[in-house]
Amino acid sequence: MTYCVGLLLDRGLVFMSDTRTNAGIDNISVVTKLRTWSVPGDRFLCLMSAGNLATTQSTVSLLEERGLAPAERKPSLLSQPSMFQTAKLIGETLKEVISYTAEAGQEASSRFSGSFILGGQIKGGRPRLFMIYPEGNFIEAGPDNPFFQIGEHKYGRPILVRTYGPNMSLEDAAKLLLVSFDSTIKSNLSVGLPIDLQVYETDSLVAGYRQRFDERHPYYRQISEGWSDSLKTAFDRLPPFVPDAA
Amino acid sequence: MTYCVGLLLDRGLVFMSDTRTNAGIDNISVVTKLRTWSVPGDRFLCLMSAGNLATTQSTVSLLEERGLAPAERKPSLLSQPSMFQTAKLIGETLKEVISYTAEAGQEASSRFSGSFILGGQIKGGRPRLFMIYPEGNFIEAGPDNPFFQIGEHKYGRPILVRTYGPNMSLEDAAKLLLVSFDSTIKSNLSVGLPIDLQVYETDSLVAGYRQRFDERHPYYRQISEGWSDSLKTAFDRLPPFVPDAA
Repeated sequence: MTYCVGLLLDRGLVFMSDTRTNAGIDNISVVTKLRTWSVPGDRFLCLMSAGNLATTQSTVSLLEERGLAPAERKPSLLSQPSMFQTAKLIGETLKEVISYTAEAGQEASSRFSGSFILGGQIKGGRPRLFMIYPEGNFIEAGPDNPFFQIGEHKYGRPILVRTYGPNMSLEDAAKLLLVSFDSTIKSNLSVGLPIDLQVYETDSLVAGYRQRFDERHPYYRQISEGWSDSLKTAFDRLPPFVPDAA
Repeated sequence: MTYCVGLLLDRGLVFMSDTRTNAGIDNISVVTKLRTWSVPGDRFLCLMSAGNLATTQSTVSLLEERGLAPAERKPSLLSQPSMFQTAKLIGETLKEVISYTAEAGQEASSRFSGSFILGGQIKGGRPRLFMIYPEGNFIEAGPDNPFFQIGEHKYGRPILVRTYGPNMSLEDAAKLLLVSFDSTIKSNLSVGLPIDLQVYETDSLVAGYRQRFDERHPYYRQISEGWSDSLKTAFDRLPPFVPDAA
């Protein structure tokens, strides 16, 4: 499977993605699911994918090919006037790719399905975060739903729900995502290291730092080992359970 | 859906189950999924169910009816010589019920499926914990897999994986399960309060305390509210993230 999270914060956007792809549990590979494009001073886009790899890679390839040939009548990924229009273009392209792979005369099979998290900022607008569905439509993050997860989202959700705050620093958000990913990786074989991190700072209009964490990365090891101890300490501090009087 | 957990500990067994049943999100009810039987001094059994309610209730009704009429040739739930034979009887009964509801001439539909967690102790044996599948077969907990979850198990798993220890007290195990359930309930509508707790102490051969927690229960509120604070403190204690030098 996959695990990707995009967080919308006051100070920017933070994206994290695992890199495991599998065709059965005996056929796993590492592939990046986090891609960025940037026109410094004008726009920054980050796209994370889940689902059928052929579908999501084809969608990205089509978006990039069309971007390289601006004379074509097809719209280009990097020339959209807004994040909304960018999400719309990606959704349409995804839907188009899925319709190729569907059997002739039928609707798209869910087996070739895919979905995306898109985040970024275009000059004149604010940073925005979208979840794009295989049907081509999409929803946007806001104060009530400030993050999106795709893939194997359940294991890592409770820590996000309890710890996220919109005014977190970008570094704390990266730390939070590492905890959420580590919880998922410890529970589910279909999500695997290494992990890709991409940070975007509001109004910078340029890619922030990108980093990869594998099992040898010292900070990842600190988080992974330290979190078990921290959780145990937190658990011990909760008041002890005493059965109600019968 | 459902969330049930059974824990095998040195000092006994701890069981917890939610009580939500639903036929669509606009049709929810409270129903207990945790049942116990006991012949004090001889045996104690606890059974928790997930899946189609008609299937699991029928299974339990059949087991109880057959137990009430010992003259019948059918074997009785409370007269099995071992926990293994008890699990086998329950598995066979479950499989029988599923086969009733399957369409004529076909294998059982997964829509009428169900599964159980069975735990208990029979005089002369040790406490044992089983997970029983709709196919009628079952697996047993041991030192390497000391707990079973059925239903919506993903949200509440990371805290179990990190905090469980076989030498925990029964009260700490009850506290741990409350944290795991609270994390699940906060993330998923299909698991709901109240929660049933059942404790069994090794070699007591009698039911330990049973308790129900709803949203007004003071200890449940302490755990639910305290855990968010504890998690935040635990998170703050992890070392801060500093991006690698480029």
